[in-house]
Amino acid sequence: MTPVSDLGEFGLIRHLTEKFPLRNASSLYGVGDDAAVIDNGGERTLVTTDILLEGIHFNLEYVPLRHLGYKAAVVNFSDIYAMNGTPRQIVVSLGVSGRFSVEMLDELYDGIRLACENYGVDLVGGDTSSSLTGLTISVTCIGSAPKDDIVMRNGAKKGDLVCVSGNLGAAYLGLQLLERERIALKDNSQAKPQFEGYEYLLQRQLKPEARKDIIEELRKAGIRPTAMMDISDGLSSEMMHICTQSGVGCRIYEDKLPIDYQAAALAEEMNMNIVTCALDGGEDYELLFTCGIGDYEKLLPLDKIFIIGHITDAEDGINLITREGTALGIKAQGWKAF
Amino acid sequence: MTPVSDLGEFGLIRHLTEKFPLRNASSLYGVGDDAAVIDNGGERTLVTTDILLEGIHFNLEYVPLRHLGYKAAVVNFSDIYAMNGTPRQIVVSLGVSGRFSVEMLDELYDGIRLACENYGVDLVGGDTSSSLTGLTISVTCIGSAPKDDIVMRNGAKKGDLVCVSGNLGAAYLGLQLLERERIALKDNSQAKPQFEGYEYLLQRQLKPEARKDIIEELRKAGIRPTAMMDISDGLSSEMMHICTQSGVGCRIYEDKLPIDYQAAALAEEMNMNIVTCALDGGEDYELLFTCGIGDYEKLLPLDKIFIIGHITDAEDGINLITREGTALGIKAQGWKAF
Repeated sequence: MTPVSDLGEFGLIRHLTEKFPLRNASSLYGVGDDAAVIDNGGERTLVTTDILLEGIHFNLEYVPLRHLGYKAAVVNFSDIYAMNGTPRQIVVSLGVSGRFSVEMLDELYDGIRLACENYGVDLVGGDTSSSLTGLTISVTCIGSAPKDDIVMRNGAKKGDLVCVSGNLGAAYLGLQLLERERIALKDNSQAKPQFEGYEYLLQRQLKPEARKDIIEELRKAGIRPTAMMDISDGLSSEMMHICTQSGVGCRIYEDKLPIDYQAAALAEEMNMNIVTCALDGGEDYELLFTCGIGDYEKLLPLDKIFIIGHITDAEDGINLITREGTALGIKAQGWKAF
Repeated sequence: MTPVSDLGEFGLIRHLTEKFPLRNASSLYGVGDDAAVIDNGGERTLVTTDILLEGIHFNLEYVPLRHLGYKAAVVNFSDIYAMNGTPRQIVVSLGVSGRFSVEMLDELYDGIRLACENYGVDLVGGDTSSSLTGLTISVTCIGSAPKDDIVMRNGAKKGDLVCVSGNLGAAYLGLQLLERERIALKDNSQAKPQFEGYEYLLQRQLKPEARKDIIEELRKAGIRPTAMMDISDGLSSEMMHICTQSGVGCRIYEDKLPIDYQAAALAEEMNMNIVTCALDGGEDYELLFTCGIGDYEKLLPLDKIFIIGHITDAEDGINLITREGTALGIKAQGWKAF
């Protein structure tokens, strides 16, 4: 028998789904982008889904249920924005073990509701079941977009600029901080966790936002990305997806990577490489996109957007250019590694 | 703290979702029917979701993974047919613990693929994650329907006929049989389970079908149901939903309930009440619908359809009329009781 880890997350998805042909004319795009694209005759319908399992994606020792609900919804909205669409509806399925009370589920749903309010999304269905183990949350988000607006991962062209909508690595370092304090306080219920000076990292980990604002700014500025996705698994992994699917290579510059000072400080304190955190950390939920060099002037006034590199021929590979000018091949691993 | 069991499945869903208003014009109908209804400008889009958890919804000691995959997909298709729509796409999310190999997941996906082939549905996305515990499968199905075709649960009118598309209770008795044999063979690996004569019950439990054929027959016959849903939680529970949402009552006749002879025989053998099994067993995935009395002549040639009662005023309540002519109030419990 073959262990799942032999294939890895992306390998497993490819292996399991490659034997499914698309039969319906309405199925415009299936597995392989941030969301599927469906044509029922009007605006395109976008569909994305995420499953969160206790002990794998969250630890209720330090993740408040309200934040968990918020995040479970927002990470799905992020996938719809990454298609240049608008999230409209969600359905939420829960598996709940006996240790959860109605009040705890209310907390979880308060978070989901706040996310729905903030992003103008409707909860339209779901399924609720008991569970023998912990908490499972499965969210599917439905979005819409005019046909010509949709941006896939496969449109990057040689010479395009590579852009990102915010700093990287902070959510990952927030998780390291939470984990460090959990272990430190394990046998000492008196002590309090030490979070001072790192509040931003916690916020990035516990209450991420989807970059609706960036989608609106790009539209206003008249910039249409050639390829786009959100950064959930880490910049390396996402650059790999865009380059592979677009049939191109890229050069990303180490000294252009936006990094928050709290992230840099904690990485230093914990003896971690901040560039590795920025490249492979994941859960930033920033938008990564490419656009034509002709959009350079339009990008300049947008101070939320960072140009971090450019697209090259496929033969050049996927490279990080270090501060010293060395080109290093980027290797990506899915964040949810088996 | 309030235990979830105080509210029950339907009470919990209502409690958690009642504070979510619908904001998007495209959200035509949210929580409360077999599927949500979305208007993106063309055909209506229908969305339904189900979550299956190991140890709650299935036991891998006797459910083959291929059957599990088939069933996980088909029960979602059934919800779309229950809206008088056509299932078109699914997204599948998995949580998989370390004891599952690639070959086991292949079995699961073989079942999903067979279901997709049989019903003409496309797999268009999903999420795959490791799990600390057992297997979790979350399926969301997207369907479509012309605006005027959609049948909700809330359209039943006084005088309407109550119809069902097949026999009831067999899937539940199949589960009882599997469970009985599992316990009997627990300490005896030599012996074989005794299934002879009850193959149909196993098929109903392990490989249910969605009644696509009934939807097509009704359409051909020119019958448009006034209310419809599929029977996943049991006839009692579903009649309660239709009557409550339509603001009506009903009379269901015990002697009209279609019951397979294998189901009757096993109930007898296991000393169970077959009528209770038919009313509360669940997982039949037959269609339950109401239609105008004027459709009576059109129904007669359709031998797959059984008329089991009629709709009354709400004040009359939801009643089972026994063989002796006594009216018993029907009480429903969600099948997935907490």
